[in-house]
Amino acid sequence: MRVKVSDAPYSIAAIKGGITAAAGFRAAGVAAGIKASGALDVTLIVADAPVPAAGVFTTNQVQAAPVKVSRANLVSSGGHAQAVIVNSGCANACTGAEGLATTEATVAATAAALGCAPQHVLVASTGVIGVQLSRDKIVAGVKSAVAALSRDGATAARGIMTTDLGPKEHAVHVETAGGVFHVGGIAKGAGMIEPMLATMLSFITTDAAVPPSLLERALREVTGRTFNAITVDGECSTNDTLAALASGASGVAIDESSYPVLVAGLEAVARTLALAIVRGGEGATKLVAIHITGAVDDQDAMRAAKTIANSPLVKTAVHGGDPNWGRLVAASGRSGARFVLEHATVEVGDVLLFRNGQPYDENASEAATRLQDSDIDIHVDLGTGGSGEATAWTCDLSAEYVRINGEYRT
Amino acid sequence: MRVKVSDAPYSIAAIKGGITAAAGFRAAGVAAGIKASGALDVTLIVADAPVPAAGVFTTNQVQAAPVKVSRANLVSSGGHAQAVIVNSGCANACTGAEGLATTEATVAATAAALGCAPQHVLVASTGVIGVQLSRDKIVAGVKSAVAALSRDGATAARGIMTTDLGPKEHAVHVETAGGVFHVGGIAKGAGMIEPMLATMLSFITTDAAVPPSLLERALREVTGRTFNAITVDGECSTNDTLAALASGASGVAIDESSYPVLVAGLEAVARTLALAIVRGGEGATKLVAIHITGAVDDQDAMRAAKTIANSPLVKTAVHGGDPNWGRLVAASGRSGARFVLEHATVEVGDVLLFRNGQPYDENASEAATRLQDSDIDIHVDLGTGGSGEATAWTCDLSAEYVRINGEYRT
Repeated sequence: MRVKVSDAPYSIAAIKGGITAAAGFRAAGVAAGIKASGALDVTLIVADAPVPAAGVFTTNQVQAAPVKVSRANLVSSGGHAQAVIVNSGCANACTGAEGLATTEATVAATAAALGCAPQHVLVASTGVIGVQLSRDKIVAGVKSAVAALSRDGATAARGIMTTDLGPKEHAVHVETAGGVFHVGGIAKGAGMIEPMLATMLSFITTDAAVPPSLLERALREVTGRTFNAITVDGECSTNDTLAALASGASGVAIDESSYPVLVAGLEAVARTLALAIVRGGEGATKLVAIHITGAVDDQDAMRAAKTIANSPLVKTAVHGGDPNWGRLVAASGRSGARFVLEHATVEVGDVLLFRNGQPYDENASEAATRLQDSDIDIHVDLGTGGSGEATAWTCDLSAEYVRINGEYRT
Repeated sequence: MRVKVSDAPYSIAAIKGGITAAAGFRAAGVAAGIKASGALDVTLIVADAPVPAAGVFTTNQVQAAPVKVSRANLVSSGGHAQAVIVNSGCANACTGAEGLATTEATVAATAAALGCAPQHVLVASTGVIGVQLSRDKIVAGVKSAVAALSRDGATAARGIMTTDLGPKEHAVHVETAGGVFHVGGIAKGAGMIEPMLATMLSFITTDAAVPPSLLERALREVTGRTFNAITVDGECSTNDTLAALASGASGVAIDESSYPVLVAGLEAVARTLALAIVRGGEGATKLVAIHITGAVDDQDAMRAAKTIANSPLVKTAVHGGDPNWGRLVAASGRSGARFVLEHATVEVGDVLLFRNGQPYDENASEAATRLQDSDIDIHVDLGTGGSGEATAWTCDLSAEYVRINGEYRT
């Protein structure tokens, strides 16, 4: 936990709820028939008026229609939004002009039903690639969702699910000298309606009053330590979207001096949601935190952490409970991060396995015992003497991952 | 196949044999007790005198003792070697000063037994990391191997195996205007004595007469299109070694004008050995060739090819027989290579699945049928209009890979 603490004292506590825990938001998830199963497949999140909003999106060169439209709307609105409309069951990616027109129709229907401008609507989709989204179904879904909006947002977390094991939501109460505000969010990821791509979607609301530029800065900072620090299989979807809206309804105003408090609140929610995605990763049985220290700088540390987190040999060793420090050393060595074997340290669950070129094989069986836990900590000091550090999270690689992703889609 | 054809006509044909198919080489594989199973674990390859030699080694920052010593010997000998001594069953990596001394003792014993200088000995190891190699066993193994040397090198391919499904050897006869020469080689890889690291080792001999600088240039050129174009799981070992020796015993001299003939001969052997490694990859049931065209340049093409080849979603889809073009498009889009979706093409086994932004889902069942084959071709045109192209080879990802690598090591 690397939250900076401002001079103003504050405290954070988890509370019940998710996307509507912050005042000034309503939400609903409804079934619009996009999923053949009849499960909830449209989620709508609405503020009482256009409010400051920020988004971060997939870096894949292939971007789904809703990603393109949401990006454009945030630019034209100067970082404001009143609604987020999401469908699961169809990614609307690689669907050409027709797919783009469907996304525009979705936005138009949402804006019309709420009486706001289309550029104040953000939009996201998740599901199978290369299939057209039914315009009739999504437009009808928008209308049902508007009718179902409530301060109890429990269905919203379900409407964005694909094969997630369960809904993911989290909320916190942030007490500051200037008053109390709330941050809440929902997420989906690492499961798929059909085995195409593991889209990551997350939406976060707060009732703090935050200028758009500060909200975007905080969202990017927090993303680097949470959603961008997790991996299930190193894949990057065409639809990944994270958006935050700030209603201001709490009356607590965030400025430069209280910015660290906003970051702390956002990070508490984002970290919990991000780790829930990893824990629910396809075939995952364990959550693994990879802590890197002794790197030249934080970027190098994250490079090593991500290489280890994506290594199939490390992920299978963790799955099998094998305290295989050689794989951690080898992954560090090929990561591109500066690595000095002679001064490196490897620990699994606080058990020392390698230090200064020397294996500690007598500790292997104790480390193997730690690897039976569902939450595992791995620590590698890269031995450069630098102060760079980073943490990444991953899950183990199981035969179940292969089964889920190897089944024929049709 | 992208071999340049020189003005001089030549022809290449596969022949029986491996590392001793070229004149001027003897070899042997013996059991020295390094493997507990009693299987062959020491291989020696010997030329009649010091001959031009070249090597390419792992780019991992963590390098095993034998890699360090071989590199140094090639420099101090000005690119000449008389012997290659290899052990399986122990990688001698992360073993500090003691490990380095064992490698030096191995080289000294080999040089003494053959009556050559230590810098004319190359050395390689494969097996478990972080365990000391028994000096007594390897030195005794060197003596047995020298006694067993013969022109029939069949045991040599077995002495470097770990959990390879079988020995890998290949040889060709190259007929040129200037006479006939031979190229032969052996390889191991993608199997492990214990589930630590999948070291790739390969040794190639030729009886062409080749100056050291030309041999190194040819080896690097060929490696880029063969051993560096394959992947099983994206891991890079601490011990990877590829070495080539040229005896000159055929009397055919290679110079600048006949350089393309040497490249063609080396490439024929290297490609077959490289593909044998992939085909025998851990848990592999299919060999997959990824052909990229329409890239900005060849480097960008290889970037996209390798990203697809390492994608767990692509590898599981191939395993399950799912013609899942969305995963190919998404991997191309995140590869870092320039990718223009609107002009891209995706084919699986010559069956068109996506072109110019348009899915061809009516062809999916025919593509699924092609995916039942053991050899699969995937073609992605990146749509930039550029002439860059590359081919990479990979295998499918199966539950068996997870089983092999997830079992506890002790």
